[in-house]
Amino acid sequence: MQNSEKILVINSGSSSLKLTLYSIGSKQRLATGFVERIGTDAANMIYSRNGETKIEKTVEAKNHAIALDLVTQYLIDPEIGVIKSLDEINAIGHRVLHGGEIFKTATLIDTDVITQLRYLVPLGPLHMPANIGGVEACKKIFPDAQNVAVFDTAFHQSMPAYASRYAIPNEYYEKYGIRKFGFHGTSHHFVTLAASEFMGRAPEELKLVTCHLGNGSSLAAVKYGKVYDTTMGLTPLDGVVMGTRSGNIDPAVVLTLVRQGMTADEIDNMLNKQSGLFGVGGIDSGDMRDIVSNAAAGVATAKLALDMWAHRIVFYIGGYSSLIGGADAIVFTGGIGENSWQAREKVLSRLESIGCIMDEKANSTRRGPCYVSTPDSPVAVIIMPTDEELMIAKQTSEVVSAYRASIRKEEAERDFVI
Amino acid sequence: MQNSEKILVINSGSSSLKLTLYSIGSKQRLATGFVERIGTDAANMIYSRNGETKIEKTVEAKNHAIALDLVTQYLIDPEIGVIKSLDEINAIGHRVLHGGEIFKTATLIDTDVITQLRYLVPLGPLHMPANIGGVEACKKIFPDAQNVAVFDTAFHQSMPAYASRYAIPNEYYEKYGIRKFGFHGTSHHFVTLAASEFMGRAPEELKLVTCHLGNGSSLAAVKYGKVYDTTMGLTPLDGVVMGTRSGNIDPAVVLTLVRQGMTADEIDNMLNKQSGLFGVGGIDSGDMRDIVSNAAAGVATAKLALDMWAHRIVFYIGGYSSLIGGADAIVFTGGIGENSWQAREKVLSRLESIGCIMDEKANSTRRGPCYVSTPDSPVAVIIMPTDEELMIAKQTSEVVSAYRASIRKEEAERDFVI
Repeated sequence: MQNSEKILVINSGSSSLKLTLYSIGSKQRLATGFVERIGTDAANMIYSRNGETKIEKTVEAKNHAIALDLVTQYLIDPEIGVIKSLDEINAIGHRVLHGGEIFKTATLIDTDVITQLRYLVPLGPLHMPANIGGVEACKKIFPDAQNVAVFDTAFHQSMPAYASRYAIPNEYYEKYGIRKFGFHGTSHHFVTLAASEFMGRAPEELKLVTCHLGNGSSLAAVKYGKVYDTTMGLTPLDGVVMGTRSGNIDPAVVLTLVRQGMTADEIDNMLNKQSGLFGVGGIDSGDMRDIVSNAAAGVATAKLALDMWAHRIVFYIGGYSSLIGGADAIVFTGGIGENSWQAREKVLSRLESIGCIMDEKANSTRRGPCYVSTPDSPVAVIIMPTDEELMIAKQTSEVVSAYRASIRKEEAERDFVI
Repeated sequence: MQNSEKILVINSGSSSLKLTLYSIGSKQRLATGFVERIGTDAANMIYSRNGETKIEKTVEAKNHAIALDLVTQYLIDPEIGVIKSLDEINAIGHRVLHGGEIFKTATLIDTDVITQLRYLVPLGPLHMPANIGGVEACKKIFPDAQNVAVFDTAFHQSMPAYASRYAIPNEYYEKYGIRKFGFHGTSHHFVTLAASEFMGRAPEELKLVTCHLGNGSSLAAVKYGKVYDTTMGLTPLDGVVMGTRSGNIDPAVVLTLVRQGMTADEIDNMLNKQSGLFGVGGIDSGDMRDIVSNAAAGVATAKLALDMWAHRIVFYIGGYSSLIGGADAIVFTGGIGENSWQAREKVLSRLESIGCIMDEKANSTRRGPCYVSTPDSPVAVIIMPTDEELMIAKQTSEVVSAYRASIRKEEAERDFVI
């Protein structure tokens, strides 16, 4: 019997809220809702059913709870809704940025967990309060549903200490918790499982380099189903060149700028919002499509940005491949990884030495899931569309099922004792 | 006829001065002098002739000029000296930390060059004034000799912009000159040439990853004789884990510490002096020999430090190998690279996927120059002792010879015109 359970997935940002309702058995996305500019007079709401009916309107949404309430009314609308009553939603999965070292897997949210999430706010001062706010809004609107936190950092918690620790005095780790955490874990996890299934092999027998390349980008060395190293660090700033983030730079650059009188906030803003493809490309855009077209049209700064981007990714793929003793497959995902064949080609044309033989035609024409390496390429190259929401829904379903089973077991044992 | 020219090589640090006198034709090191704790009441001087006679004594050396004068008196001492008169020294090579983007090769020092060196002081606030001071001291003691600056950064100036630039807004490069420079260039250059000669091939046909591993460490991807990428950045802080330096960390770590109230100087000191093997090893030493022995004895923090060190080097070697399309050889040099077979083994045992088959016995017993890979290893692994002073002497000789030739040519042309 197919599981007909409905799972609601919530991605709550500082001024936005994204909802996705899944029927977990069919993995079907029943409806999505998105509200942005929450807290302003003119929030924008988009609701869409089965990827078809689409409603877009300006709404008043002073806070996340109001935004959530607005969207959920559409879910139960007799005409364009997908469920009859909110009671049908018994489980809600929340995308949570940071699990610190406390949360290594998806976790059922109770009062203690909320307390621990608050304790982790300093690790994600913008995202964590929004994530917690999303949970609290759900508790009001769905008082009987189980809430599950699915952490962006959790999948990377398998890194050995010699990969996750920085070579700074131990007290900075012990007292202040400064270490590499890594992000996009849900996406790396999803494509690890999906690529393994696509290859017809178990994740436990595969060595992969997963490349989540979007506006934010990270790579992971995934050995036998577990992350061995990843490019993002204490924060999502480190690693490869991103849309507006610098990625890896000499940490002394920050010291130089501090000495020149810049404040931490100014430097933070520059490195996170003004850098990357945007900062180098010189075309007032950090969008890879614009960078590719301008580079092709001969804009020198756009070409430089594209070359820098590809250079670092080739470097990281090679480095990670060697760390895991040679990859079985390189997996591309994310907005750029899935959709920009030109960006992929820039990288793949330089990976022959580690055994990737690109199928040029496949790379420039196929859409994932697919191979873009030749059949005889020693290392497979795969495009695998990511679906973080579906992964959150699945993990939520698993956590809630396990919880219910444990409750049933407890009750059965209690009955037995009596 | 062998070139009997004497070249003096000066390495002038903030409170130390090292002199090496070469007979350039025989590449023979005639004498060395070293003065440390310059500026204190009790400077320490070591003079040694042909690596034999050795004198060590406490001296008064208020400044670099006095220290230089002290040592040069030994060079002409009738009993333990190696030359009859200081007039025999016509060319002096100076190790200079930073050439910025101005100096791409070794350069004859005239008044304009001194001005330009002063302009570069902000790029090396500790080293550059000492380097310039060394030049000025030589001008007094050897008024007729030619002085040549040999830059630690010069060999890396071949990096393409997409490797040397950071993905930060272009103005930070254009206005403030913030980019990757790389260091240890003289050593990477020396072992590039020496390893090529050892392999019986031209550097122009070889792809190498050169690993200068000492208290300070850096790697370079050297493609056809030219640096394509290197691990150190704007400063010598970035890249691999070093004796007391952190190497690469998320730049946001620095921002986090600034926000916690640390000053730039405190963070600088922590990352450069208290980190690396020293900061993690927990044994009050950043010396690889101590780390190796303590790790072997089961000290967990020392083992962690060693594992972190090796992990990052495997990563960088793999990354650089892929960037240059597969290396022909990996070259180890520097105090650790040449002498710690245990540290090398930690790295080499994990490089089979990029084609390095370690010869375990060779690695644990042989001293460079030698192969430590098996004869059928697709990628050769070589230990090549570095000799930065000899490289400086050679380059100095070349620059001075070219200068003299140009003078002769000018004179000849002038004679002809008359």
